[in-house]
Amino acid sequence: MLTLSLIGIGCGDPEQLTRAAITAINAADLVLIPRKGSAKSDLADLRRTICTDVLANKATSIAEFDVPVRDAGEADYRKGVDDWHDAVAAAWSRTIASHLGGEGKVALLIWGDPSLYDSSLRIARRLNPLPMIEVVPGITSIQALCAAHALPLNDIGEPFLVTTGRRLREGGWPQGVDTVVVMLDGGTAFQSLDPEGLHIWWGAYLGMPDQITMSGALTEVGPRIVALRQEARERHGWIMDSYILKRRP
Amino acid sequence: MLTLSLIGIGCGDPEQLTRAAITAINAADLVLIPRKGSAKSDLADLRRTICTDVLANKATSIAEFDVPVRDAGEADYRKGVDDWHDAVAAAWSRTIASHLGGEGKVALLIWGDPSLYDSSLRIARRLNPLPMIEVVPGITSIQALCAAHALPLNDIGEPFLVTTGRRLREGGWPQGVDTVVVMLDGGTAFQSLDPEGLHIWWGAYLGMPDQITMSGALTEVGPRIVALRQEARERHGWIMDSYILKRRP
Repeated sequence: MLTLSLIGIGCGDPEQLTRAAITAINAADLVLIPRKGSAKSDLADLRRTICTDVLANKATSIAEFDVPVRDAGEADYRKGVDDWHDAVAAAWSRTIASHLGGEGKVALLIWGDPSLYDSSLRIARRLNPLPMIEVVPGITSIQALCAAHALPLNDIGEPFLVTTGRRLREGGWPQGVDTVVVMLDGGTAFQSLDPEGLHIWWGAYLGMPDQITMSGALTEVGPRIVALRQEARERHGWIMDSYILKRRP
Repeated sequence: MLTLSLIGIGCGDPEQLTRAAITAINAADLVLIPRKGSAKSDLADLRRTICTDVLANKATSIAEFDVPVRDAGEADYRKGVDDWHDAVAAAWSRTIASHLGGEGKVALLIWGDPSLYDSSLRIARRLNPLPMIEVVPGITSIQALCAAHALPLNDIGEPFLVTTGRRLREGGWPQGVDTVVVMLDGGTAFQSLDPEGLHIWWGAYLGMPDQITMSGALTEVGPRIVALRQEARERHGWIMDSYILKRRP
């Protein structure tokens, strides 16, 4: 029997690791470390650092593998993602088979929390043979963002929406909410909104030594975030950021 | 100078504590433990257990204090909450002043994450003198719920709404989303919806030894959750539960 633990490791700061995550890493026979190409090598480095830091079990092996690249040329977005998940599942299966055979405990360290904008749970269900799946929650970038700003995410008794940059750009301000969390924004989708009456709490490289945050009225800080983001992206070669928008009547 | 650390401790399982939370508890001169009456004594007990378990700093004191009760008779809900926050802030200030005087590091252990449906950040801003406020994020019941069900919260590239039982009851299924997380539901607001085509992932006492979960088509498991919830509530004297609803076209 094969067990797969998807372990949330937080979003950059090894101090965000939970005791359950540390226990789960040490209970593994094999830790898989995905390599996603040089632009995101900081992320693979973080996973290696965490293993070095918390792994006390000498029987645990670590295996790195190259993550297949998604075919961005596929016109059907859903099909592109679907094919890619199959390819990633095959890469996991190959790496597991070559190290463990058919049984043991495999761990995958997941950026943030395995339940939030992450494909690992969907990919895990395509493995052959199908493992027992166990999820260890981790601190997300939404939580790190709120903590950095000491910001209550929801207003009292009020709802909030978590959405993507693309959705915000295409659909405008969502109906029925005054608080919106924007994830997976490859750009600055907030620029597509009328900034009047909106406040923003923005952060990049959250939890990492290079964390940057900025907040204020969108009319005022929006253009400064655009410039800062561009500059940071050029300097690092990559950027991961997210933000919260609130409408203040 | 006074520093106040609001430390997320997860939602019941001491294994959900992060390394940052443990460090922050041990950095405190004073840990405040709120007592909220006998019905919620399990929660105060958990805070005491966590302190006993992780506190290695002999110089840290622990102070328990009674949390003022909100005036449920106040017709204006906002004013009731406002007055209550003032009263809680006064109780914090008194307890801090009697143990520390005007300077030092105070820690408050917050159920879940201080940013999510929690009043501590708002209360902290009413303290006199105003402390430096620091937030340590913790695992929320939403995350524990997803982990228990090995459920990806969002569909691929799709948004989700986090809302309250009252909102769901009053407003019906929210516009523009197929995934809804329901928090702070004192009852079973999902019963107000047409269950056709809806799936539910429900959990109570998440992360605790008595954790219960149930999932399935709402038509089928809805009535079973209602009965199970009633029975568990009577047995424990209290219940804390939350759930995720997904609309499957």
